[in-house]
Amino acid sequence: MQRHFDQDLAHLKRQLLRMGGLVESQIQQALTALVDRNSDLALTVIQQDHDVNALDVKIDNLCIQLLALQQPTARDLRFITTAMKISSELERMGDLADNIARRALELNVEPQLKPYIDIPRMANWTMRMVKECLDAFVNSDPVLARKVCMDDDFVDDVNEQLFRELLSFMLENTQTITRALRLTFVAKSLERIADHATNIAELVVYMVEGKNIRHTLPSASV
Amino acid sequence: MQRHFDQDLAHLKRQLLRMGGLVESQIQQALTALVDRNSDLALTVIQQDHDVNALDVKIDNLCIQLLALQQPTARDLRFITTAMKISSELERMGDLADNIARRALELNVEPQLKPYIDIPRMANWTMRMVKECLDAFVNSDPVLARKVCMDDDFVDDVNEQLFRELLSFMLENTQTITRALRLTFVAKSLERIADHATNIAELVVYMVEGKNIRHTLPSASV
Repeated sequence: MQRHFDQDLAHLKRQLLRMGGLVESQIQQALTALVDRNSDLALTVIQQDHDVNALDVKIDNLCIQLLALQQPTARDLRFITTAMKISSELERMGDLADNIARRALELNVEPQLKPYIDIPRMANWTMRMVKECLDAFVNSDPVLARKVCMDDDFVDDVNEQLFRELLSFMLENTQTITRALRLTFVAKSLERIADHATNIAELVVYMVEGKNIRHTLPSASV
Repeated sequence: MQRHFDQDLAHLKRQLLRMGGLVESQIQQALTALVDRNSDLALTVIQQDHDVNALDVKIDNLCIQLLALQQPTARDLRFITTAMKISSELERMGDLADNIARRALELNVEPQLKPYIDIPRMANWTMRMVKECLDAFVNSDPVLARKVCMDDDFVDDVNEQLFRELLSFMLENTQTITRALRLTFVAKSLERIADHATNIAELVVYMVEGKNIRHTLPSASV
């Protein structure tokens, strides 16, 4: 019985990693669609959002099934309830990648406002956070999870800095306003993806240590 | 045993309603702080966010305890996992009310850009959605839950309309840009609160009917 249950848990872990990999690639492709002005790729991202959503539903059902049939306790119980929550966080990241792809579609038909430097930098940082929070989950690694929480500050800082820069474009020349606003939305989406990675990291610390570190830091404001 | 368990479930329900009531009042007060230019009230909202977060942690622990000790199946299991998710949704609504209060603090020290008409209208609609999705949960009412999902379209429409209006202000006069942007953020926060209410409504349909209606509608884009 326990052996079968261990296999079920390993299967659940694999499904979550598959979903995580899909979301990472969605974010990467949405950014490439923007930077390379590749609208076909943006459309691909939007179409693939369906796959991420389907995995979320599947993982949720798997967790409910495990809770009902195996009636787990202690560590296993915490693992399964954490998996349910991680799946929701990943699904929202997928939605945000979809949002970035939609903004890319709009931006790609207009002249480029400025060379994209800060946004890819922010995106790389964010994608590393997504990868690391999932590594922390798979390896039950609270040290790596805590590092992800610290990294979130950097993304918040770049977002604020970018916001001020885009605001100065708007103030100087009203013709830039629409494009600058769309870029603000892209940066905001990245910043929210980093927030979701932080949520996952906090869930991992709770799963491993039974200690709740959520709500111990002030939230960003922009 | 079952009778004790029923009492535990009733207690869980009451805690969620208490959290819901708190979040509703946070949204209401954040809006009043903006419309009446009352910065003291905005500060109160920001301070009270701590209470919402504390309730989220409490409800989460309560759910884990119930899963571990009672090993519920079928309907009760679905009720508890739904309660865990509703608590996360409410906690995020609390964060968004906090965001609105912070924008109100900034807006209240500048001359008012325009009479606030659409934002309170959007807020009233959103608060009704919050109230109704919780009523749908307490009364296991999938009809009301589905109504909440439909109402979300209206909030999205008002948000888009308001966004276009604020954009025209920015284009006409660069001196309005900062204030118009802050108002855009307030509207966006309300729109996201309505999204969370919709998430709760979808969870209620799943809880009652075992049918997943998430991911069946396209998501809003602005």
